[in-house]
Amino acid sequence: MIVQHELNHFINTNREKIQQELTHHLHQLDIPEQLKNSMIYSAEAGGKRLRPILLIASFNAYSDDVSKVLSSAVALELIHTYSLIHDDLPAMDDDDVRRGHPTNHIKFDEATAILAGDALLTFSFELIANDVYLTDNQKVQLIQLFSKASGPKGMVAGQILDMEAEKKAVTLEELETIHALKTGELFRFAIRSGAYLGEATREQIAHLDKFAHFLGLIFQIQDDILDVTGDAEKIGKPVGSDETNEKNTYVKLLDIDGAVEKKEYYVSKAKKELSEANADASYLMALVDYLSNRDH
Amino acid sequence: MIVQHELNHFINTNREKIQQELTHHLHQLDIPEQLKNSMIYSAEAGGKRLRPILLIASFNAYSDDVSKVLSSAVALELIHTYSLIHDDLPAMDDDDVRRGHPTNHIKFDEATAILAGDALLTFSFELIANDVYLTDNQKVQLIQLFSKASGPKGMVAGQILDMEAEKKAVTLEELETIHALKTGELFRFAIRSGAYLGEATREQIAHLDKFAHFLGLIFQIQDDILDVTGDAEKIGKPVGSDETNEKNTYVKLLDIDGAVEKKEYYVSKAKKELSEANADASYLMALVDYLSNRDH
Repeated sequence: MIVQHELNHFINTNREKIQQELTHHLHQLDIPEQLKNSMIYSAEAGGKRLRPILLIASFNAYSDDVSKVLSSAVALELIHTYSLIHDDLPAMDDDDVRRGHPTNHIKFDEATAILAGDALLTFSFELIANDVYLTDNQKVQLIQLFSKASGPKGMVAGQILDMEAEKKAVTLEELETIHALKTGELFRFAIRSGAYLGEATREQIAHLDKFAHFLGLIFQIQDDILDVTGDAEKIGKPVGSDETNEKNTYVKLLDIDGAVEKKEYYVSKAKKELSEANADASYLMALVDYLSNRDH
Repeated sequence: MIVQHELNHFINTNREKIQQELTHHLHQLDIPEQLKNSMIYSAEAGGKRLRPILLIASFNAYSDDVSKVLSSAVALELIHTYSLIHDDLPAMDDDDVRRGHPTNHIKFDEATAILAGDALLTFSFELIANDVYLTDNQKVQLIQLFSKASGPKGMVAGQILDMEAEKKAVTLEELETIHALKTGELFRFAIRSGAYLGEATREQIAHLDKFAHFLGLIFQIQDDILDVTGDAEKIGKPVGSDETNEKNTYVKLLDIDGAVEKKEYYVSKAKKELSEANADASYLMALVDYLSNRDH
């Protein structure tokens, strides 16, 4: 079993590797300065690097040499970054601040933010297609998963459903569909692609796929809980902002106790799938509790 | 040599095939209705389908069975469509009308237009990655070319330079750099990828790459000329709108006579490269004159 300080070491070490790889790829770009600056600004704006860390943890459950997945991990983080830039735009969530810094369109301008998002999205496919560690077949498999997870059948579908849901009350089922698409699909890509490149069996990947689904929901429920019970300083936004913004949340639909209960239920489901995937002793197992109990 | 009615037949036949393939891929999508409608609205809004036709013509210079390239041709058209949707946004060119119809953000709303663009961009990579006619190696080569041509080193770079140039006078060299990136890169992708899939030699592709560069500039010069000498009805915008909008154009920098001369020079250069690529008798040759002399 992985103990806390081992997990912290794993997270910090890989966050550092991801950061180096990301910096390497973006800083070497020979492109117009304004575009480059705005891409780097958002990509390096901090963040937990959760998705690439999940990808690496999933890979590590079956294989060792992390260099094989670093480009894919960065590509995933860049897709996540593009989605945040576009999400923050005035026509979307209209957010001026993210992680304590001005959002991209505030720091630069709206047109630049739109183009920086487009550029990061496109560049993430270029990264995978040019990854020297992967075979052509691996690249194609990854791009199939990646485009599906992030495109109109995945994340973008979640974003439009989320927007539509803002105007009305939703059921728990509808809420979970939105989360499964908007955040869950990239979680699934992280876990599936890591295991695939780590040469997990087809059956193991099937269990991990379910695991990833539950992990995404756990992540989201904890988000909703923290909005009510968290420390404003740590979560980086006022406590109770979901209620103020009339957002559909687990807490709104189930109250705090119901949300905690639901989360614990998914934690047990997630861990069961991990066992079935022979990944009991992996960092993924430790990450379930880490995500379930995080305070920010 | 291809005569006019043969070229017309070639264009009409392939435009129909592209339309069918595009409709097939978009209509079968099982995604949120608003997103699907807005993707289809812009993708089916007419347009010349010039880029996919160039891809097919380039393929046809060396091979016959067009079914091999139809998905790639549609992917290219969808990337072009996404770029128009984002270009028309209020924060970018702020255009309400395109090809006689309301632009995407007018017909739907701004958030939907941003997401429809993101979705089309991502889906175009999914199309190539899932193309049953291509080998893994071909898919990877195509995605490498495609992501480079449409991303921060290509089309997106051109768009940001174009925006920056709006505020100032540019030299002819700067103008050509903008065009080479903003429209030329997708032309180059069309020609290169068609020839590559048609199994042209490396040397032939190198000549075609130069050809495509010239063809892009010919296309652009004719655009600028038509803005002054064209028929408003046919070009779909008021004559002289470039001057009204203080756009940097070939005509502004060289006057009409100079622009025509420049265009003729590029036509001869383009045809020379085609000969070197053993594509004298191809539809590409006929398309040079077609694009150079078009009235809309």
